[in-house]
Amino acid sequence: MRITRILETTVPLAGNIANALVNFSEHTISLVAVQSDVIRNGKAVTGVAFNSIGRFGQGGILRERMIPRVLAAAPQTLLTADGKQFDASQVLAAALRNEKPGGHGDRASAAAAIELAIWDLNAKLNDEPAYQTIARHYGRTVTDKRAAVYAAGGYYYPDASLDRLKAELKAYQEMGFEAFKMKIGGAPLAEDIARIEAALAIAGDGKRLSVDANGRFDLEMALAYAGEIAPMKLRWYEEVGDPLDYDLNRRIAEQYDGPLATGENLFSTQDVKNLVQFAGLRPGRDIFQMDAGLSYGITEYAKMLAVLEAHGFDRRFAFPHGGHLINLHIAVALGLGGCEAYPGVFQPFGGYGENCKIGGGYVEPTDAPGFGLEEKEGLAGKIADLAF
Amino acid sequence: MRITRILETTVPLAGNIANALVNFSEHTISLVAVQSDVIRNGKAVTGVAFNSIGRFGQGGILRERMIPRVLAAAPQTLLTADGKQFDASQVLAAALRNEKPGGHGDRASAAAAIELAIWDLNAKLNDEPAYQTIARHYGRTVTDKRAAVYAAGGYYYPDASLDRLKAELKAYQEMGFEAFKMKIGGAPLAEDIARIEAALAIAGDGKRLSVDANGRFDLEMALAYAGEIAPMKLRWYEEVGDPLDYDLNRRIAEQYDGPLATGENLFSTQDVKNLVQFAGLRPGRDIFQMDAGLSYGITEYAKMLAVLEAHGFDRRFAFPHGGHLINLHIAVALGLGGCEAYPGVFQPFGGYGENCKIGGGYVEPTDAPGFGLEEKEGLAGKIADLAF
Repeated sequence: MRITRILETTVPLAGNIANALVNFSEHTISLVAVQSDVIRNGKAVTGVAFNSIGRFGQGGILRERMIPRVLAAAPQTLLTADGKQFDASQVLAAALRNEKPGGHGDRASAAAAIELAIWDLNAKLNDEPAYQTIARHYGRTVTDKRAAVYAAGGYYYPDASLDRLKAELKAYQEMGFEAFKMKIGGAPLAEDIARIEAALAIAGDGKRLSVDANGRFDLEMALAYAGEIAPMKLRWYEEVGDPLDYDLNRRIAEQYDGPLATGENLFSTQDVKNLVQFAGLRPGRDIFQMDAGLSYGITEYAKMLAVLEAHGFDRRFAFPHGGHLINLHIAVALGLGGCEAYPGVFQPFGGYGENCKIGGGYVEPTDAPGFGLEEKEGLAGKIADLAF
Repeated sequence: MRITRILETTVPLAGNIANALVNFSEHTISLVAVQSDVIRNGKAVTGVAFNSIGRFGQGGILRERMIPRVLAAAPQTLLTADGKQFDASQVLAAALRNEKPGGHGDRASAAAAIELAIWDLNAKLNDEPAYQTIARHYGRTVTDKRAAVYAAGGYYYPDASLDRLKAELKAYQEMGFEAFKMKIGGAPLAEDIARIEAALAIAGDGKRLSVDANGRFDLEMALAYAGEIAPMKLRWYEEVGDPLDYDLNRRIAEQYDGPLATGENLFSTQDVKNLVQFAGLRPGRDIFQMDAGLSYGITEYAKMLAVLEAHGFDRRFAFPHGGHLINLHIAVALGLGGCEAYPGVFQPFGGYGENCKIGGGYVEPTDAPGFGLEEKEGLAGKIADLAF
């Protein structure tokens, strides 16, 4: 059994929305297909995945560095010992051959797209949903195939208004979501507080609403917002300052009692080690949002979870950034607290397929083999264009 | 005055050498030319630079993200207030538009190639060597246009032998170098100690020889080597563990009295802040090797120096990674301790032009406008192919 081809294409994200720092209308995604020499129903079994949302496609790194390395590796070195599955950690190691330590940026999401496609491929070889393959690999049994999700929205739109924000959250509620996240830091404090209050009117309770500053605040601004939102008892206060500023995070944690959330812009296990060593995060309270699709895939994400647990944190406080089918399967497989959901944004990658059940604040993947990306409208066509 | 075109090409590095972790024969470099609409002698004044050595060309990120952003920026926003120079920090900001915080990896060296080319362009507009332009911008006067350099070699070659290593260092000595650096960690401890002893026989004194583990060691191995090399009083012990493992560095610093050196794989000011906050480095002893060509260019490098100085460190303990003309000009301009030199490796980028004076452990740039890359044999042709 071997990999015969690795195909990649860059797909733009639909939408014209912004958070505190960036406009997403120029963001792109790498969609990757890893084709095997296993033929079923006359077609090569092919794993498909993408790197995660909010950054960029990585066609250059994939074409110039990683795909040639994986295809140059001796095929048997990329298989598990029994030869029945591809070994995602070995494929990742091949993709990263000759790369230096440090510098966990764009290459981490390029590698992730390949690594995640291996899980999709293995699941299709097993003819089972990816969460089963992932759970088995890590010695886990899935007792609840639902994941708790929250609807991430509340971006800054060009036609921003409080009514628009309320209507948006109300629409998510009608879809079956019960918890929500909105952006802050892209408007003056008073305006943001009015936005939060409008959102609370729909959410009904602070424990159903999180706010996300996307790394924009310095200590002074962080504490100014903290003082205003503390009485609202919000679900969490996300990525308040620079994601790598552990000392800033520690100072905020000393003064804000509510849960903090961070980690979506940490792309390696070593960065997560630094976070738990230096950032003052509090077990049983704070939230971790590392995202396999931005950080070398599930192989590295599982190591990040091990670091959390070694430092007294519980994986039920892990809610990966990136609201899409791949993270849904990862959250179900690894027993995480839940995951983000993008019901309205970042098409064609955000959100779930039509057959995924959403309700009561949970989403449940279907039994489609792999991540089920081929079931998702808008994405199926992109996959077909790429892989066949 | 405006930028009319930005051209880039990927150039492979010559050589078949390895450090403890990677083989450099597949490494590449992005060579970038930023062409202005200023015509002199019938030709457009054009800035040229490259990202630094030891990682990869960044054609994908340059073509898909950064070059279009810079060319789309309103031309006057990329100029200094008097309109006479390009503003490197504004060009960098344009190149990074819509990029999220964190993830300082490949994009940092893509951006660096453009940012550094702006300094070359400004220096050519001023008809002066780049170190003058850089020094003036940062309010400095160059009193000594020489930089203290050490010859970085002692890699693991396929035909490794102690005699080969000694001959290599002896050749550097005959070129005018007095201090040397060699790789460790790619062979068993006893073999590496024999290599260090052979090198010391040429260097004559531990204070003229550094050793570089390229981030390979865990604490146990780091301390095993430390115990063996401590009596040799080496110049420094470089990048002992993972470059982001600040806690490991702190533990090593507690037990090894000699100078430690690190930083070449930290690509942002925030990472350097974390280093000085958490890694136990000792002012007046330890060495910082951040490299502008890997970390967004001189704009960011100057901020890194400010962080060092704010934490009690002296810029004379900064020796940038990357032994080439660009870092030579930066070291002279900013009054650093010195810089690395690659006299024999990483062609056509490593080392200096024929007209640069080397002797007594110092290298002096010529008076050629800009970084003088056009004076360097092997590189001049690549630049001509790219830019004209």
